[in-house]
Amino acid sequence: MRHDGRQVNQLRPIEVRRQFTDSSPGSVYIKAGRTTLLCTASVDLEVPPWKKHEENPSGWVTAEYNMLPGSTSPRKRRDRTKVDGRSTEIQRLIGRSLRAVVDFQALGPRTITIDCDVLEADGGTRTLGITGGFIALVDALLWLRKQDPTCDIQKILVDTVAAVSVGICEGVPLLDLNYIEDSTAEVDLNVVMTGSGQFVEIQGTAEQRTFSHDQLQKQLALAGDGIVELTRIQRDIFGENWPLDQNPSS
Amino acid sequence: MRHDGRQVNQLRPIEVRRQFTDSSPGSVYIKAGRTTLLCTASVDLEVPPWKKHEENPSGWVTAEYNMLPGSTSPRKRRDRTKVDGRSTEIQRLIGRSLRAVVDFQALGPRTITIDCDVLEADGGTRTLGITGGFIALVDALLWLRKQDPTCDIQKILVDTVAAVSVGICEGVPLLDLNYIEDSTAEVDLNVVMTGSGQFVEIQGTAEQRTFSHDQLQKQLALAGDGIVELTRIQRDIFGENWPLDQNPSS
Amino acid sequence: MRHDGRQVNQLRPIEVRRQFTDSSPGSVYIKAGRTTLLCTASVDLEVPPWKKHEENPSGWVTAEYNMLPGSTSPRKRRDRTKVDGRSTEIQRLIGRSLRAVVDFQALGPRTITIDCDVLEADGGTRTLGITGGFIALVDALLWLRKQDPTCDIQKILVDTVAAVSVGICEGVPLLDLNYIEDSTAEVDLNVVMTGSGQFVEIQGTAEQRTFSHDQLQKQLALAGDGIVELTRIQRDIFGENWPLDQNPSS
Amino acid sequence: MRHDGRQVNQLRPIEVRRQFTDSSPGSVYIKAGRTTLLCTASVDLEVPPWKKHEENPSGWVTAEYNMLPGSTSPRKRRDRTKVDGRSTEIQRLIGRSLRAVVDFQALGPRTITIDCDVLEADGGTRTLGITGGFIALVDALLWLRKQDPTCDIQKILVDTVAAVSVGICEGVPLLDLNYIEDSTAEVDLNVVMTGSGQFVEIQGTAEQRTFSHDQLQKQLALAGDGIVELTRIQRDIFGENWPLDQNPSS
Amino acid sequence: MRHDGRQVNQLRPIEVRRQFTDSSPGSVYIKAGRTTLLCTASVDLEVPPWKKHEENPSGWVTAEYNMLPGSTSPRKRRDRTKVDGRSTEIQRLIGRSLRAVVDFQALGPRTITIDCDVLEADGGTRTLGITGGFIALVDALLWLRKQDPTCDIQKILVDTVAAVSVGICEGVPLLDLNYIEDSTAEVDLNVVMTGSGQFVEIQGTAEQRTFSHDQLQKQLALAGDGIVELTRIQRDIFGENWPLDQNPSS
Amino acid sequence: MRHDGRQVNQLRPIEVRRQFTDSSPGSVYIKAGRTTLLCTASVDLEVPPWKKHEENPSGWVTAEYNMLPGSTSPRKRRDRTKVDGRSTEIQRLIGRSLRAVVDFQALGPRTITIDCDVLEADGGTRTLGITGGFIALVDALLWLRKQDPTCDIQKILVDTVAAVSVGICEGVPLLDLNYIEDSTAEVDLNVVMTGSGQFVEIQGTAEQRTFSHDQLQKQLALAGDGIVELTRIQRDIFGENWPLDQNPSS
Repeated sequence: MRHDGRQVNQLRPIEVRRQFTDSSPGSVYIKAGRTTLLCTASVDLEVPPWKKHEENPSGWVTAEYNMLPGSTSPRKRRDRTKVDGRSTEIQRLIGRSLRAVVDFQALGPRTITIDCDVLEADGGTRTLGITGGFIALVDALLWLRKQDPTCDIQKILVDTVAAVSVGICEGVPLLDLNYIEDSTAEVDLNVVMTGSGQFVEIQGTAEQRTFSHDQLQKQLALAGDGIVELTRIQRDIFGENWPLDQNPSS
Repeated sequence: MRHDGRQVNQLRPIEVRRQFTDSSPGSVYIKAGRTTLLCTASVDLEVPPWKKHEENPSGWVTAEYNMLPGSTSPRKRRDRTKVDGRSTEIQRLIGRSLRAVVDFQALGPRTITIDCDVLEADGGTRTLGITGGFIALVDALLWLRKQDPTCDIQKILVDTVAAVSVGICEGVPLLDLNYIEDSTAEVDLNVVMTGSGQFVEIQGTAEQRTFSHDQLQKQLALAGDGIVELTRIQRDIFGENWPLDQNPSS
Repeated sequence: MRHDGRQVNQLRPIEVRRQFTDSSPGSVYIKAGRTTLLCTASVDLEVPPWKKHEENPSGWVTAEYNMLPGSTSPRKRRDRTKVDGRSTEIQRLIGRSLRAVVDFQALGPRTITIDCDVLEADGGTRTLGITGGFIALVDALLWLRKQDPTCDIQKILVDTVAAVSVGICEGVPLLDLNYIEDSTAEVDLNVVMTGSGQFVEIQGTAEQRTFSHDQLQKQLALAGDGIVELTRIQRDIFGENWPLDQNPSS
Repeated sequence: MRHDGRQVNQLRPIEVRRQFTDSSPGSVYIKAGRTTLLCTASVDLEVPPWKKHEENPSGWVTAEYNMLPGSTSPRKRRDRTKVDGRSTEIQRLIGRSLRAVVDFQALGPRTITIDCDVLEADGGTRTLGITGGFIALVDALLWLRKQDPTCDIQKILVDTVAAVSVGICEGVPLLDLNYIEDSTAEVDLNVVMTGSGQFVEIQGTAEQRTFSHDQLQKQLALAGDGIVELTRIQRDIFGENWPLDQNPSS
Repeated sequence: MRHDGRQVNQLRPIEVRRQFTDSSPGSVYIKAGRTTLLCTASVDLEVPPWKKHEENPSGWVTAEYNMLPGSTSPRKRRDRTKVDGRSTEIQRLIGRSLRAVVDFQALGPRTITIDCDVLEADGGTRTLGITGGFIALVDALLWLRKQDPTCDIQKILVDTVAAVSVGICEGVPLLDLNYIEDSTAEVDLNVVMTGSGQFVEIQGTAEQRTFSHDQLQKQLALAGDGIVELTRIQRDIFGENWPLDQNPSS
Repeated sequence: MRHDGRQVNQLRPIEVRRQFTDSSPGSVYIKAGRTTLLCTASVDLEVPPWKKHEENPSGWVTAEYNMLPGSTSPRKRRDRTKVDGRSTEIQRLIGRSLRAVVDFQALGPRTITIDCDVLEADGGTRTLGITGGFIALVDALLWLRKQDPTCDIQKILVDTVAAVSVGICEGVPLLDLNYIEDSTAEVDLNVVMTGSGQFVEIQGTAEQRTFSHDQLQKQLALAGDGIVELTRIQRDIFGENWPLDQNPSS
């Protein structure tokens, strides 16, 4: 059993609140254990400069990631003169992951920006940013459809997307590492998958020792189970407002 | 009556949650109408560099202010390569205001940083940052006292502090402007006062037309009433944990 | 009596030279005691980007503030990679104050930039920047009228503007603080007023102790007298070239 | 067959020159097809600041990555005011990969910096940076051993490391993508492995469509074969100066 | 005759005021025609970081150059986020030129910073910065000697230094170009020389056409005559306070 | 004889390889002794913004200079947040020197950027950048002529250009200083000349002692001989592809 009482294949308890603030079309408070993010989705009725010369300019989805100073102890200094390398890398991952399930022609000439601001960091902020960012993205599309009923969410979203970390601690593969586990893990693997069970992104790093082909397979299996559970949570939070007909994880 | 139904001398409804996150000694969610901030207080057991050469180095309190991108519509770009002038000005105000009620010798060689991150902006973010930041500061001191029972909060805090805006809209002085009121106000006055009724800071600006001595007096009176109410809210949220003996607003 | 021999309600001796350099339409050397500024006014026949889409684009007035390295001892480092917070705050104040007396429609599609460069700093640089910046602004308008006789200065300038600091030192309210007084003042209040006696901006800060309602009133009265004197000096330096018919301070 | 005539499982021809310049302990010119890098290794007899307080400070290996402007057409602008996100991400990957085979206690209080400057970019610059960077690292250790014969390279290097990209183009898994293949690949996977066949890092990204578990396995197999070949090249270039007894890939 | 009535070998009229401000040990207002600079000299009782480890740390002289926004029309933007290449190049030239006549061992562990701020620019700002900067340097040394009578100015200054520009306009070599001449010159040559007639720096640039050996010689002769005149002005402004016994230009 | 066995008037051995990489129209590896540069020339079919409003926009040539970290020992930090003053000064010199032999009307609306990246630095990098940069420029023009046969290289290039350093070490004038000579030279003079023997740029600096008129002449003579030799090397490397009819150095 793990130091917080979880099984090796158990996610942390997740709490999600949609419309947490009123200032953005999507505004999702998402908490997994003691990791908390505010994921907001803003809609800009422009396309990025490098798409403006397309004949029928398609849309774009981008992401930014930031840790609030009070999200860690000791306090994290703000990125005020440059963005640190880790933040850049994470926000590029979040953006790529969300774009993998969006059809930009169907979205039309709009840019959706997902801001993932970490209020409290206890491991897994980047994967929770993807899982929560997708919920904010859906809310932004629901908002768009209210403005413009021709906006066809089922065409825009080709699938759902969620992410989770797995790792090997003292030789044992574990699902959804918290900070203590993450900082002692021998291997750290972030897995981004669609609701239909396809891979979007795999990032595995040997933190303290290299890993074998067999260890890789065990971690991928654990991650797959976690993604199924997270996909269910994403759908359930919308209830009957869930805009995608098909049950994506079945 | 105002467009949101308030009286001219009525504050917006205020909601406060202490210990909103677990990652900082002070963590206060504060919402006034549709303006929402997360004010965290971090404690560093060091003094700033320019105090290190003092014989008995005293402490320091500083503040940072930031608007999250999703706090406004259209989305606000992050301050990632430089801090914009407005943010700098606001965080200097918040820091000065909180320092006005702290005895640095009594605090001892510690730096407390108050981070005011705006989750949702509908006017009055800087004054709410002072009001909420003070609550986070008290929580940080309660946390410090648990670590070190010799920490004497009644000596450290020489008073309480809160802030409110007043303005003149279409000739009528109003208390606690929201965004629509603020953007059409002829005069905008931010008032920072102690619980004992002294001024800490007055910042009045003629936005559209200059103002007379008489108009100034009327606004100061409105602000004074607002501060009394805010001081009461600050005390009530702590209940019996309120660490200051005297009732500061009476 | 004060350490430099002044009465509590006495301004420092002021020296003003117009057309100090030939390279700008307005170029004013202004010295109050040992505080010296060069205030230049440049005219750009463009409007700022955010006004370009107006149908009849109106003009704009903006200001920049900078201390030369040799203006203080020890030498002040140049702001070469970022502008420090204090400079930003001051130049925003100077810009707002000058804009308060300008009718932008009457000015037409032109941007006037007032640069306040401090050659020697002994307290009160921001208020002297406003007082001297207004003189440079008038000179720029006289220059504009030579280029374009339809330029109607009496419509463009709706009033005059000047500024002065007041403070409380050892309990005594004093007018026009120099550096030694400023650095020991318990309260520091900068007042910007028009020639007609209206307030443009009030910025009062408790530096060492908070201040009462009564102390505020005494300082405002001192400041009002100082502004009358400064307004007279502004008018006298132009002699018969003063472009405003009415005597603004009477 | 591929557009440059290679088999699906064939590496590009590789040319390596050690001691390409005399100004660094390690200086490796490495060219794979039309991708060319200069990998230099510099040795600093200091440890990074955050290791200085260790009792027996261990060493560190870090990397920087940069594309020369003329390495692409159109010319790439220099990173002169900030490092772009992609460069940051790549140099973090190269650094992590090299550190995975170094024993920092055995290295002792020294920092080795591997600079990977891309002279010509035709795909696969990051993986070639790891493969060539390892050769430069070995040369730096050989140089160190000349200075200090107690430097035990077999203890410092716990394994060898190399990297290669694989991808899926039009449904076919391919080894070692060049630029045209990379830009049309549906999936792009960078694999970093040791000479002993363990994983150091896996980074797989769905560029145009998501990928299945089966496709992942096929790519990993291709990559494994490529790494065996690259490891042999790394060893052969040193000939009898190869400082590691065991044949790492067998 | 030149467009401002000068002979080809005639300097512009020069006006110098020492102690222009009281805030720096050296403060020199220097005006040549319509080019005006404020050259201040500040003294820091520290040596630069890279000299701190010397056994008997010697001193240093450095310079900074800046054009005020109002010094040109149209207004020059401030260097607030980076220093432009031209300013960097000029301040490096001024620093090198002044250092050429200073004995750093005799100066002792002090850093003198010469700030050359251009109030009005009509050509020749860099050379006037050297000529005026030297006067400010002498004043700083006179100030130092008052603080510390052992400060031996005759040992510290091994010579005097001044600078002037020459150029070729329409084939005719001219001394001391103003802006109009400078911008139409075919060749532009800045010459820095000591009072004893030695070269410190020569910077010649073909602006519109290359130049021959003979043309170079004619310009050097003109410059030599100008330097003799400038050296005399430098000495005369000090009168009997001139701290160097020998008449440097004879 | 010099420490590397050269005569006082002898250049270092020079190796040149054209088309060193395939990614730029011009790509020249040039090595003089142990100073090595990669000079690439990129062609952009645009003119710089400040030329766009010309009726028949003419072209432009610009240069950038950079030292790779491994080009010196100890390693040189990258210019990643700002360009250091020395690099800026050098790249401005290289750009000016190349522009002196280009007819921009004949070039037409194109910008050619010469990147001089130093792979190994042992003195004389800026002059070798000019000499090698000119070769890259010629290759870019040959490439342009292939694209557009109307491109008339003999009109575009009005002359050839090369550069060399001379200096005075222990009183003896030397040609083409390497690093050890350069760092002990009393005087350092960089000379840029055309193939026809005209001066383009002269930059002489007294490093340790000032220099006389006679010393200047001796250095200029040495430099002239070096330029003749370098011009011959530039022509010979092209053989029969040399696009300029006249033999520029005879």
